[in-house]
Amino acid sequence: MKDVTEIKGGITAPAGFLAGTIFCGVKESNTSKEDMALICSEVPAAAAGTFTTNKVKAAPVLVSMAHLRMGGKAGHVRAILANSGNANACTGPQGLESARRMCRAAAGSLGQSMRVKPREILVCSTGRIGVQLPIAKMEAAIAKLPPKLGKFSKRAAQAIMTSDSFPKEIAVQCQLGGKAVRIGGIAKGAGMIDPNMATMLSFITTDAAIAKADLQKALRASVAHSFNRITVDGDMSTNDTVLALANGRAGNKPLAWGSPQFAIFQQALDHVTASLARMIVLDGEGVSRFIDLHLTGARTEREARLAARAIANSMLVKCAWFGGDPNWGRIVDAIGYSGARIREERISIAYNGLPAVQGGMAAPTPVAKLRAIAHKKEFTISVDLGLGTGTHRIWTTDLTTKYVEFNMGE
Amino acid sequence: MKDVTEIKGGITAPAGFLAGTIFCGVKESNTSKEDMALICSEVPAAAAGTFTTNKVKAAPVLVSMAHLRMGGKAGHVRAILANSGNANACTGPQGLESARRMCRAAAGSLGQSMRVKPREILVCSTGRIGVQLPIAKMEAAIAKLPPKLGKFSKRAAQAIMTSDSFPKEIAVQCQLGGKAVRIGGIAKGAGMIDPNMATMLSFITTDAAIAKADLQKALRASVAHSFNRITVDGDMSTNDTVLALANGRAGNKPLAWGSPQFAIFQQALDHVTASLARMIVLDGEGVSRFIDLHLTGARTEREARLAARAIANSMLVKCAWFGGDPNWGRIVDAIGYSGARIREERISIAYNGLPAVQGGMAAPTPVAKLRAIAHKKEFTISVDLGLGTGTHRIWTTDLTTKYVEFNMGE
Repeated sequence: MKDVTEIKGGITAPAGFLAGTIFCGVKESNTSKEDMALICSEVPAAAAGTFTTNKVKAAPVLVSMAHLRMGGKAGHVRAILANSGNANACTGPQGLESARRMCRAAAGSLGQSMRVKPREILVCSTGRIGVQLPIAKMEAAIAKLPPKLGKFSKRAAQAIMTSDSFPKEIAVQCQLGGKAVRIGGIAKGAGMIDPNMATMLSFITTDAAIAKADLQKALRASVAHSFNRITVDGDMSTNDTVLALANGRAGNKPLAWGSPQFAIFQQALDHVTASLARMIVLDGEGVSRFIDLHLTGARTEREARLAARAIANSMLVKCAWFGGDPNWGRIVDAIGYSGARIREERISIAYNGLPAVQGGMAAPTPVAKLRAIAHKKEFTISVDLGLGTGTHRIWTTDLTTKYVEFNMGE
Repeated sequence: MKDVTEIKGGITAPAGFLAGTIFCGVKESNTSKEDMALICSEVPAAAAGTFTTNKVKAAPVLVSMAHLRMGGKAGHVRAILANSGNANACTGPQGLESARRMCRAAAGSLGQSMRVKPREILVCSTGRIGVQLPIAKMEAAIAKLPPKLGKFSKRAAQAIMTSDSFPKEIAVQCQLGGKAVRIGGIAKGAGMIDPNMATMLSFITTDAAIAKADLQKALRASVAHSFNRITVDGDMSTNDTVLALANGRAGNKPLAWGSPQFAIFQQALDHVTASLARMIVLDGEGVSRFIDLHLTGARTEREARLAARAIANSMLVKCAWFGGDPNWGRIVDAIGYSGARIREERISIAYNGLPAVQGGMAAPTPVAKLRAIAHKKEFTISVDLGLGTGTHRIWTTDLTTKYVEFNMGE
């Protein structure tokens, strides 16, 4: 980490990036919270994205995927437009047209100062499912957005919040070939929206010069070890999206895939995504504990993932964590039905390094010591299946009465 | 159902079956609830069983599976011995030996009046995981059990209860070739034990004459449409067991597989297992709603099951049900990540027959009408993927704050 330092400024820390926010009234309720953000690069930027693997994809996901494939000249992009309050999911052809209209409106309003095509806009929505967007109202607001652009990262982070309790932003700086390169990011959490869908969004900006294909590779690798490693309730939204823009304003020599400088850039990007992912978990609805789960010794990587996810998403395991109960029986049970190959007598489990299970049976550690760990706000659980080299790490939470109350609607 | 009538008597309704119970003090806590039951056939009985598919299997599961394979003469069995308070799971070689000692003790104590071998005893345990059984105390209690045998079905159902709020028993009668044949059953629910594992046990007796292999086929079919179709939290225990004994005392001509009489027997057995399964769901911890979920139109049976289980086990969907919120967005989302192939625009969803989703989008039914249904204690959700002929039906529940409180331990 010596090559990477945290700096202030969030998503507008990198040179040439601006953010602006506005209140459109996307939701019917009479809140006055700003519900739309525009993040814009002063020059065309290389873009990359990763999207939900849910087979039901919201309209903005489909439109952003298409725009990423096409983009403008050299596949470049100019801005990300995002709203909260309505997910524009399960909205059919009209929803698709609304997402496209958002892009046209943003291109039109930015086009007063620069040439921007609708396909150079990426679009995201988060909020209620199955309701059409109030698109006319939104178009009117988008027209007023450009004068509001500035170094307003935190306001953008706030505008995309739904049930999040705090805005999530971070920025880092690293030196690449004598040039200072910055990466910034904001995110909104896997929290519920009243009364609908959990969605995770994250937008990342950098002034590094990097080819579009390389940015995509770097983002994919980074997401695999951050946003794809967190789970609150195992439900994957129709709108989950991570977008990255790189505008080259740092003036570095374009990063070459596989070079030492690329490795530093990857390290910096990983710090941004891991920090945002951690904030999302910590801000999960009603979360009272953060568990860092290390699964080792599986026969394959796939089986390590199966076992880790079965533990992390077991309602019984999560309820025990809520109670500060180091209930390893439920963990063994979840491993047993996960689909991973096991030999019961090879399983070992430790809490913060203290053995709870050895050889598939209770370890001699006094229960009081394990209980003290399970009562902490954060702890590590290490599970070793003792069969192979497959590993998986996941960050997860407990299941609380507050979570249920939060998500029961009405 | 005209061929099948419900009668009283539970597991001791069929001729030649007796049940007895006793207090052993399996748990350390100073409860005086009876915690052991013996269900015994006066003559050798054909036996069948289905067991948890969890790869971590408790010692009594392994022993009962072995005894079912061997059995006594002609694979016959004499009794089922079951305890609550301790699951004898994750207990290694000592646990296996304890399960075998339970069988030896039961065979020995019954052997004073009849010749019984240890392998003619099936054994079950439910309760805490990872703790050795107090086997000496249990052996002493088992020795005192035979004089307590009688028509005590309800007491047996109570003795195997853990967190269940009521004993679960049923019996039916049907006519097969002019002979009255009875089937009885008891069960304990998928509820949590303080502070450990959910286990489902069910024991079924019948005085029908039926070959062991045919009983196994009938039981397997029946379980597939009852106990294997219920889910409270998606967690599958290390101890789940369904056992059936058939002693032939009704005097019917042995049932021939595929005959009309076999079909009536199957119908009667299905009524027993479905009734017990329903009682288990209704008695789930903290359950406030019972949902009958019909999934149709999947490309395959397997995909129908994937989609139905994803819906039934989604924490977000279950929280919405708790709130009486007909939140179809969460259902569509769960279908989308279930692994089933879908075409969003073909999905339809109905609550008690009222359309909520048509063509992947909100149906024109007023939300108030859907909400009124979702507020009922029991309702049906029909999901049609519109792609093929695969169907799956599942009974499930909501996720409540009480469930979390119940399962948080401490």
